[in-house]
Amino acid sequence: MSNREQRYEDGMKVLAAVDGEGGQRVVENLADVSPELGHQVVAWAFGDMYSRAELPPRDRQLVTLGMLTALGGCEIELDVHINAALNVGLTPVEISEALLHSAVYCGMPRAVNATLVAKKVFGERGLLPVAS
Amino acid sequence: MSNREQRYEDGMKVLAAVDGEGGQRVVENLADVSPELGHQVVAWAFGDMYSRAELPPRDRQLVTLGMLTALGGCEIELDVHINAALNVGLTPVEISEALLHSAVYCGMPRAVNATLVAKKVFGERGLLPVAS
Amino acid sequence: MSNREQRYEDGMKVLAAVDGEGGQRVVENLADVSPELGHQVVAWAFGDMYSRAELPPRDRQLVTLGMLTALGGCEIELDVHINAALNVGLTPVEISEALLHSAVYCGMPRAVNATLVAKKVFGERGLLPVAS
Amino acid sequence: MSNREQRYEDGMKVLAAVDGEGGQRVVENLADVSPELGHQVVAWAFGDMYSRAELPPRDRQLVTLGMLTALGGCEIELDVHINAALNVGLTPVEISEALLHSAVYCGMPRAVNATLVAKKVFGERGLLPVAS
Amino acid sequence: MSNREQRYEDGMKVLAAVDGEGGQRVVENLADVSPELGHQVVAWAFGDMYSRAELPPRDRQLVTLGMLTALGGCEIELDVHINAALNVGLTPVEISEALLHSAVYCGMPRAVNATLVAKKVFGERGLLPVAS
Amino acid sequence: MSNREQRYEDGMKVLAAVDGEGGQRVVENLADVSPELGHQVVAWAFGDMYSRAELPPRDRQLVTLGMLTALGGCEIELDVHINAALNVGLTPVEISEALLHSAVYCGMPRAVNATLVAKKVFGERGLLPVAS
Repeated sequence: MSNREQRYEDGMKVLAAVDGEGGQRVVENLADVSPELGHQVVAWAFGDMYSRAELPPRDRQLVTLGMLTALGGCEIELDVHINAALNVGLTPVEISEALLHSAVYCGMPRAVNATLVAKKVFGERGLLPVAS
Repeated sequence: MSNREQRYEDGMKVLAAVDGEGGQRVVENLADVSPELGHQVVAWAFGDMYSRAELPPRDRQLVTLGMLTALGGCEIELDVHINAALNVGLTPVEISEALLHSAVYCGMPRAVNATLVAKKVFGERGLLPVAS
Repeated sequence: MSNREQRYEDGMKVLAAVDGEGGQRVVENLADVSPELGHQVVAWAFGDMYSRAELPPRDRQLVTLGMLTALGGCEIELDVHINAALNVGLTPVEISEALLHSAVYCGMPRAVNATLVAKKVFGERGLLPVAS
Repeated sequence: MSNREQRYEDGMKVLAAVDGEGGQRVVENLADVSPELGHQVVAWAFGDMYSRAELPPRDRQLVTLGMLTALGGCEIELDVHINAALNVGLTPVEISEALLHSAVYCGMPRAVNATLVAKKVFGERGLLPVAS
Repeated sequence: MSNREQRYEDGMKVLAAVDGEGGQRVVENLADVSPELGHQVVAWAFGDMYSRAELPPRDRQLVTLGMLTALGGCEIELDVHINAALNVGLTPVEISEALLHSAVYCGMPRAVNATLVAKKVFGERGLLPVAS
Repeated sequence: MSNREQRYEDGMKVLAAVDGEGGQRVVENLADVSPELGHQVVAWAFGDMYSRAELPPRDRQLVTLGMLTALGGCEIELDVHINAALNVGLTPVEISEALLHSAVYCGMPRAVNATLVAKKVFGERGLLPVAS
C-alpha cells in the first residue's frame, strides 16, 4: 500500500470514529466533482491532523465548534461537527453552553444560527429538550 | 421579582416594540435547546443594551443593517431586522438605500444578498415596488 | 444617450457575455426592490470595472472564485460565477482545482461548500464527473 | 470636461466635505500603485453613491460604522470614517453608543477594537473623555 | 450594592482570575471612551456568561481560541486569551495544537497569525521552545 | 528518507521557487512555537497541494490574491503572496488590477488595504510607479 493510500486509510478510521456517517457522506458527495478534495479531507484533515495525540477529540471539537460558529455560513459543517461532538463525549448541555459562550465573542446572530443547528441535530438524536 | 426576571421583562417590552413577532419567534425557537441564549437575547441584548437612551431605535437599526450585511450568512437575522427597521420608522427607500450603500464597503455579493431579503420582507408587507 | 445609459448598455454586453442568463436574472430580481443596485451591478461592476483590458476575463474569474469562496455565504454568487468561469474558458478541472487550492487558505469548510456549488453547476451543464 | 472627470470632480467635493483630509490622503496614497482605485473611490464611491439624496450623510455613517466594525481588520478605514462621522454631525456619545451596540451583533472583540480606534480619533480632536 | 454593581464585582473576580492583568488593562483602556463597554465586558461577559458552571474555564478557552482565530484581526484579544488559556490550565503544547488544528477549518493564514501571537505570549512567559 | 521527509523536501523546493525568502522566513519563525505547523505549510500546502499540475502557479496566485484580500487581516500573507505573484510571472499592472477587481466583490476597504500592501512590496522591488 502506498503512503498516500495508507494515510487515507488511517484517516478513514478517524473520520468514521468521529463523524460517523456524516463525514463519509461529505466525502462521497465530493467523489464526482473533486475526488482530491475528498482525499485531502480524509488523508490530511483526519489522517494527519485530527489523529495527533497532542489534543484529544473532545478538545478538538470544542475548538471546532468555536471556529465554525465564528466563520458563519457553515451550517452543513456544524451539523457534521455537532454530531461529532456528541460522538466524542460532549453532552448536549456542554455543546449548548459552548454556543452560548460564542455570543460573547461572535455576537448573537452567529450564536443563534449555530444553536439552531444544534437543535436540529439534538432533535434527530432524541436529545431535546436540553436540561438547563 | 428578581433582578434577572425584571431585566427579562424590560427586554421583552423592547423586543416586542422593535421586532414584533419575529424576535419572539426566535426566542421561542431557542426554548428547548438553549433557554439561556433566549434569555440573554431578551434580557441583555434588548433589556440592557437596545433600550439605552444614547441612540434612538432608528439609528440602531441603521447600524444593525450595516453589521448584518457585512457579516454575511445572517439572512434569518436580516429578515427580523428589516422588519424591525420598518417598525421603528425607516422607509423602504431608506432601507434599500442603506443596502445599496453597503455595496461600497462590503462588495456587491453581500449587498445583493441583503437586498433580496429586503425584497422578501417588503413583499410580505405589501411594500413593493420600492419607489425610486 | 446619456453617459449613465451608455455605461449601462456597455455593462449589459459584458454581463451577457460573461454571466449569460444568470447575471441578468440577478439584475431583474432586483428591479422592484433596488433598481439602482441592479444599475450599479451592470454599469459599474461590469461596464466600468470588469471590461478593463488590464486583466482578461479568465484571470478575473480566478480571482473572483477565490474571493467568493473566502467570503462564505455567497452560494448564489458562486453559482453565477462558476457558470461565468466556464463561459470564459476555465475548464471543470481548473475550477475544481482552484477550489481545492482554496482549502489551504480558507480551510476545508469553505472549500467544500464552494465545491458543492461547482458540483451543482457542472451537473446542470452535463460536465460530471470531472476527470481527475 | 469628460463625464469621467466630472464624476471625479463631483466625488472630490463630497469626499472633502465628509472625510476631510483623511480620505484625500488615502487617494493620494494610492496614486503610484493604483490610480484607478483612487479614481473609483472618489468618482464612484463618493460621486455616484455617497452623494445620493435617499439617505443623508449622518445615516450613511451609522451604516458604515456598523459595516467596518463587523468586517474587522479595517482600522485604517474606521479612523477615516469615525472622523467622517464627527464631520457630518454624529456626537462622540452617539458614536461610542453605536460601537457599544455592535457588541450585540459582532461580539466583544470587534466592538472593543472599533472603540479603541474611536478613542484615538476622539483624543486627536480633544474630545476625551466622552461624557457618559 | 445595586444589582448592576454586584454583577460588575462578580465579573471582576472572574476576569482577574482568568485574564489576570491583560483583561483589566482592556477595561481601563476603555474608561474614557466607552465606560459602558468596559462595564459590559466585566459584568456581562465575565459576570453573567463566563462564570456559568456548565462549562469549565479550560473548555471555554478552547472554544475562544477557535473563535478568535477564525474571526481574524483579533490579535489583541488573542494575546489576552492565550494568556488566559495558560492561566486556566492549558499547556503550551495544547494551545499550539489547537491553533494547528485551526488550519484545517480556517486555513493556513489564520492559523499562522494566531500561532505568531502564541509565540509572543509564550516568549514573554519564558515558555519557548514549545516541546514537540 | 521517510515519506514525511520526502513530502517536506518536495514542498521546500516549491516554496523556495514560489515565495523565495518570504515563505521560508514564515516557516523559520514558527520553528520554536509550532514546528508541526511549519512542516504542514511546507509538506502539505506546497508539497502536496501547490505542486499539483492541474493549475499553474500564475493561476494559483490569482486565486490566492482574491482569497487573502477577501479574508482581511492577512497583511503578512499578502506581502508573501504579492511577492510570490511577481515571482511566478504576474506583472505589477496585473496584480494592481486584480486588487482593483476585488473592490467589486469585497468592497473598497479590503481592496484599499490589499493595494497598500502591494505598494509596499512594489516599492521594495523598485516597481513603482505602476504604469497605468
